[in-house]
Amino acid sequence: MLKVIAQDFIRPEAVEIVRPLYDELVRLTRAEPLCLSYDLFVDQKDPGHFIFIETWPDRAALDAHCATEHFRRLVPRINAHQRQDGTFILMDEFPG
Amino acid sequence: MLKVIAQDFIRPEAVEIVRPLYDELVRLTRAEPLCLSYDLFVDQKDPGHFIFIETWPDRAALDAHCATEHFRRLVPRINAHQRQDGTFILMDEFPG
Repeated sequence: MLKVIAQDFIRPEAVEIVRPLYDELVRLTRAEPLCLSYDLFVDQKDPGHFIFIETWPDRAALDAHCATEHFRRLVPRINAHQRQDGTFILMDEFPG
Repeated sequence: MLKVIAQDFIRPEAVEIVRPLYDELVRLTRAEPLCLSYDLFVDQKDPGHFIFIETWPDRAALDAHCATEHFRRLVPRINAHQRQDGTFILMDEFPG
Protein backbone atom coordinates (compact mmCIF):
# COMPACT_ATOMS: atom_id res chain seq x y z
CA MET A 1 0.00 0.00 0.00
CA LEU A 2 1.33 3.39 -1.05
CA LYS A 3 0.28 6.58 0.72
CA VAL A 4 0.86 9.97 -0.94
CA ILE A 5 0.70 13.55 0.29
CA ALA A 6 0.72 16.03 -2.61
CA GLN A 7 0.69 19.74 -1.80
CA ASP A 8 -0.20 22.62 -4.13
CA PHE A 9 0.37 26.30 -3.46
CA ILE A 10 -2.04 28.47 -5.43
CA ARG A 11 -2.01 32.24 -5.79
CA PRO A 12 -4.72 33.75 -3.56
CA GLU A 13 -6.50 35.43 -6.45
CA ALA A 14 -6.79 32.12 -8.32
CA VAL A 15 -8.37 29.99 -5.59
CA GLU A 16 -11.85 30.31 -7.08
CA ILE A 17 -10.50 29.52 -10.54
CA VAL A 18 -8.91 26.24 -9.49
CA ARG A 19 -11.83 25.07 -7.34
CA PRO A 20 -13.86 23.52 -10.21
CA LEU A 21 -10.67 22.00 -11.63
CA TYR A 22 -9.97 20.30 -8.31
CA ASP A 23 -13.61 19.19 -8.15
CA GLU A 24 -13.31 17.48 -11.49
CA LEU A 25 -9.90 15.98 -10.66
CA VAL A 26 -11.19 14.49 -7.41
CA ARG A 27 -14.35 13.13 -9.01
CA LEU A 28 -12.59 11.49 -11.95
CA THR A 29 -9.68 10.17 -9.90
CA ARG A 30 -11.99 8.51 -7.38
CA ALA A 31 -13.57 6.71 -10.32
CA GLU A 32 -10.23 5.16 -11.35
CA PRO A 33 -10.40 1.42 -10.71
CA LEU A 34 -7.12 1.36 -8.75
CA CYS A 35 -7.81 4.43 -6.58
CA LEU A 36 -8.19 3.40 -2.93
CA SER A 37 -8.66 6.95 -1.59
CA TYR A 38 -8.18 10.47 -2.93
CA ASP A 39 -9.11 13.24 -0.52
CA LEU A 40 -8.43 16.95 -0.80
CA PHE A 41 -7.98 19.35 2.12
CA VAL A 42 -7.23 23.04 2.61
CA ASP A 43 -4.79 24.44 5.17
CA GLN A 44 -6.74 26.34 7.81
CA LYS A 45 -4.01 29.01 7.81
CA ASP A 46 -3.63 29.37 4.04
CA PRO A 47 -6.61 29.09 1.64
CA GLY A 48 -4.23 28.65 -1.31
CA HIS A 49 -2.50 25.63 0.24
CA PHE A 50 -4.23 22.48 -1.01
CA ILE A 51 -3.29 19.04 0.28
CA PHE A 52 -4.17 15.72 -1.32
CA ILE A 53 -4.01 12.58 0.80
CA GLU A 54 -4.03 9.57 -1.51
CA THR A 55 -3.93 5.80 -1.17
CA TRP A 56 -2.88 3.51 -4.02
CA PRO A 57 -2.15 -0.20 -4.07
CA ASP A 58 1.35 0.42 -5.42
CA ARG A 59 3.58 2.74 -7.43
CA ALA A 60 2.30 1.39 -10.73
CA ALA A 61 -1.21 2.49 -9.83
CA LEU A 62 0.02 5.99 -8.99
CA ASP A 63 1.90 6.14 -12.28
CA ALA A 64 -1.25 5.03 -14.11
CA HIS A 65 -3.15 7.85 -12.37
CA CYS A 66 -0.58 10.39 -13.52
CA ALA A 67 -1.01 9.13 -17.09
CA THR A 68 -4.81 9.46 -17.20
CA GLU A 69 -6.49 11.90 -19.53
CA HIS A 70 -8.01 13.85 -16.63
CA PHE A 71 -4.70 14.17 -14.77
CA ARG A 72 -2.81 15.30 -17.88
CA ARG A 73 -5.56 17.75 -18.80
CA LEU A 74 -6.40 19.24 -15.38
CA VAL A 75 -3.09 19.35 -13.50
CA PRO A 76 -1.36 21.74 -15.93
CA ARG A 77 -4.43 24.01 -15.79
CA ILE A 78 -4.18 24.04 -11.97
CA ASN A 79 -0.42 24.48 -12.00
CA ALA A 80 -0.75 27.57 -14.18
CA HIS A 81 -1.96 29.30 -10.99
CA GLN A 82 0.78 28.08 -8.65
CA ARG A 83 2.72 30.58 -6.58
CA GLN A 84 5.44 27.97 -5.96
CA ASP A 85 6.17 24.41 -7.04
CA GLY A 86 4.06 21.67 -5.54
CA THR A 87 5.58 18.95 -3.38
CA PHE A 88 4.82 15.29 -2.90
CA ILE A 89 5.80 12.64 -0.40
CA LEU A 90 5.51 8.92 -1.14
CA MET A 91 5.15 6.98 2.08
CA ASP A 92 5.06 3.47 3.48
CA GLU A 93 3.05 2.47 6.51
CA PHE A 94 5.04 2.66 9.74
CA PRO A 95 6.23 -0.91 10.32
CA GLY A 96 5.49 -0.62 14.02
CA MET B 1 -13.98 17.28 11.05
CA LEU B 2 -10.36 18.27 11.50
CA LYS B 3 -7.57 16.62 9.53
CA VAL B 4 -3.95 16.95 10.70
CA ILE B 5 -0.60 16.17 9.11
CA ALA B 6 2.22 16.21 11.67
CA GLN B 7 5.77 15.60 10.46
CA ASP B 8 8.81 14.62 12.53
CA PHE B 9 12.40 14.63 11.38
CA ILE B 10 14.52 12.19 13.39
CA ARG B 11 18.28 11.77 13.30
CA PRO B 12 19.19 8.66 11.29
CA GLU B 13 21.01 7.01 14.18
CA ALA B 14 17.95 7.38 16.42
CA VAL B 15 15.31 5.79 14.18
CA GLU B 16 15.43 2.48 16.06
CA ILE B 17 15.24 4.30 19.40
CA VAL B 18 12.05 6.18 18.53
CA ARG B 19 10.30 3.21 16.93
CA PRO B 20 8.91 1.73 20.20
CA LEU B 21 7.97 5.24 21.37
CA TYR B 22 5.94 5.77 18.18
CA ASP B 23 4.42 2.31 18.62
CA GLU B 24 3.19 3.22 22.08
CA LEU B 25 1.99 6.67 20.99
CA VAL B 26 -0.04 5.23 18.11
CA ARG B 27 -1.54 2.47 20.27
CA LEU B 28 -2.57 4.75 23.12
CA THR B 29 -3.81 7.56 20.87
CA ARG B 30 -6.03 5.22 18.87
CA ALA B 31 -7.60 4.22 22.19
CA GLU B 32 -8.62 7.84 22.94
CA PRO B 33 -12.40 8.09 22.75
CA LEU B 34 -12.33 11.10 20.41
CA CYS B 35 -9.68 9.77 18.01
CA LEU B 36 -11.19 9.11 14.57
CA SER B 37 -7.94 8.03 12.92
CA TYR B 38 -4.23 8.21 13.76
CA ASP B 39 -1.92 6.65 11.21
CA LEU B 40 1.84 6.86 10.97
CA PHE B 41 3.87 6.67 7.77
CA VAL B 42 7.53 6.86 6.75
CA ASP B 43 8.88 8.81 3.77
CA GLN B 44 10.17 6.34 1.19
CA LYS B 45 13.11 8.67 0.53
CA ASP B 46 14.01 9.42 4.17
CA PRO B 47 13.69 6.80 6.95
CA GLY B 48 13.92 9.55 9.60
CA HIS B 49 10.94 11.47 8.19
CA PHE B 50 7.80 10.30 10.01
CA ILE B 51 4.36 11.55 8.99
CA PHE B 52 1.19 11.29 11.07
CA ILE B 53 -2.17 11.60 9.32
CA GLU B 54 -4.83 12.24 11.93
CA THR B 55 -8.58 12.80 12.03
CA TRP B 56 -10.34 14.45 14.97
CA PRO B 57 -13.91 15.66 15.34
CA ASP B 58 -12.73 19.19 16.14
CA ARG B 59 -9.93 21.31 17.56
CA ALA B 60 -10.97 20.61 21.15
CA ALA B 61 -10.40 16.89 20.59
CA LEU B 62 -6.92 17.56 19.19
CA ASP B 63 -6.13 19.77 22.19
CA ALA B 64 -7.34 17.02 24.53
CA HIS B 65 -5.02 14.57 22.74
CA CYS B 66 -2.07 16.91 23.24
CA ALA B 67 -2.89 17.07 26.96
CA THR B 68 -2.99 13.28 27.52
CA GLU B 69 -0.48 11.57 29.75
CA HIS B 70 0.89 9.49 26.87
CA PHE B 71 1.35 12.52 24.58
CA ARG B 72 3.09 14.57 27.26
CA ARG B 73 5.30 11.65 28.24
CA LEU B 74 6.23 10.24 24.81
CA VAL B 75 6.47 13.28 22.51
CA PRO B 76 9.35 14.94 24.42
CA ARG B 77 11.20 11.60 24.39
CA ILE B 78 10.76 11.41 20.61
CA ASN B 79 11.62 15.06 20.11
CA ALA B 80 14.92 14.58 21.94
CA HIS B 81 16.06 12.79 18.77
CA GLN B 82 14.88 15.39 16.24
CA ARG B 83 17.29 16.74 13.67
CA GLN B 84 14.95 19.69 13.01
CA ASP B 85 11.67 20.99 14.38
CA GLY B 86 8.54 19.10 13.48
CA THR B 87 5.76 20.70 11.47
CA PHE B 88 2.01 20.37 11.51
CA ILE B 89 -0.83 21.40 9.23
CA LEU B 90 -4.42 21.68 10.41
CA MET B 91 -6.80 21.21 7.51
CA ASP B 92 -10.44 21.40 6.55
CA GLU B 93 -12.05 19.21 3.93
CA PHE B 94 -12.07 20.78 0.48
CA PRO B 95 -15.51 22.34 0.16
CA GLY B 96 -15.81 21.13 -3.42
